[in-house]
Amino acid sequence: MNFSSRFIEEAVNAFASLPGIGKKTALRLVLHLVKQQPEIAVQFAEAIVKMRRNIRECERCHNISDDKLCSICANRSRDQSLVCVVEGIRDVMAIEGTGQYRGLYHVLGGVISPIEGIGPSDLNIDSLVQRVNEGAVKEIIMAISPTIEGETTIFYLSKKLRDTGVQVSTIARGISFGGDLEYADELTLGRSIVARVPYKGVNE
Amino acid sequence: MNFSSRFIEEAVNAFASLPGIGKKTALRLVLHLVKQQPEIAVQFAEAIVKMRRNIRECERCHNISDDKLCSICANRSRDQSLVCVVEGIRDVMAIEGTGQYRGLYHVLGGVISPIEGIGPSDLNIDSLVQRVNEGAVKEIIMAISPTIEGETTIFYLSKKLRDTGVQVSTIARGISFGGDLEYADELTLGRSIVARVPYKGVNE
Repeated sequence: MNFSSRFIEEAVNAFASLPGIGKKTALRLVLHLVKQQPEIAVQFAEAIVKMRRNIRECERCHNISDDKLCSICANRSRDQSLVCVVEGIRDVMAIEGTGQYRGLYHVLGGVISPIEGIGPSDLNIDSLVQRVNEGAVKEIIMAISPTIEGETTIFYLSKKLRDTGVQVSTIARGISFGGDLEYADELTLGRSIVARVPYKGVNE
Repeated sequence: MNFSSRFIEEAVNAFASLPGIGKKTALRLVLHLVKQQPEIAVQFAEAIVKMRRNIRECERCHNISDDKLCSICANRSRDQSLVCVVEGIRDVMAIEGTGQYRGLYHVLGGVISPIEGIGPSDLNIDSLVQRVNEGAVKEIIMAISPTIEGETTIFYLSKKLRDTGVQVSTIARGISFGGDLEYADELTLGRSIVARVPYKGVNE
């Protein structure tokens, strides 16, 4: 691309360094900011700097947070005996979005993956065991993707937690609501038959 | 979306205010910046603020510029007698990208469009007429999209420039190279037959 302005070129390169944004999209975004009042661009930049400088990890659950404890851990009305173990903060957002869960979280920061060189010590596992040992937690819900790495991580965690006596469960797996049996993969379909559940009528 | 951090929420909203970026993409970009060193986010923000504060319009051609004159107008080795009239700065970049043009530009800032309330006085037309009246310009090339608004603008400009005696041309219209006759629209195909050009052999 030919830029007649060095400043434009640098701003385009800045946007294009973000994942999934190419040079053409970057140029479109920059030209959008050029059209707006200068304050808009300054506010945009300030929001990003403020975010990057001020966010930190929740000391207890490793979720992203503005304070020492994230808003979920700090909320005393949530069930302190339930901890949902997830890979990343996006999963926390997804589960919060359902409005179905009122317990706490524990963000691992990934899953065990020898191929990518991620071992148990790279994840927030010790702090999870410590939380359980403190005694308030009654149940650990593994909300981890059912991939090979995810299953390995669940197996490792459940072994680590065996002696603590805490109850370990996983989120239900099976055919999605609205999903088509015909197009479900064999493993999911097979397991959903083996792990069938008693039918609860509408009146129950 | 449920954010446990106000700073993240503000940064996501900032990204999502850009055209073509939804909340999910915005979150992906923000989480990318969270993973990087803080300096990366600061550099990103600085590039945008610096760009927005320092760019201005070239005094002569209204192209985007770092100085009073843009790098194209300031380049004395370019043909000062040729002026290519375009709608916007993106068109300047596109034509510069071809490497086929060594003249100057004039950026209108849009086309005449009564529906969108854009009249001739909203565009950089007076300054174009003034440039031509100064005498150095011999030919005006209209590189404006062949839409109804574009054709109206070309017609208006050619009338405005009639008395100056400058030669007015438009870029060639016809079937694209690599284009398929079968899929060309009737107007383009019809006009490309009416406005056929003598075949120049490979030896010429």
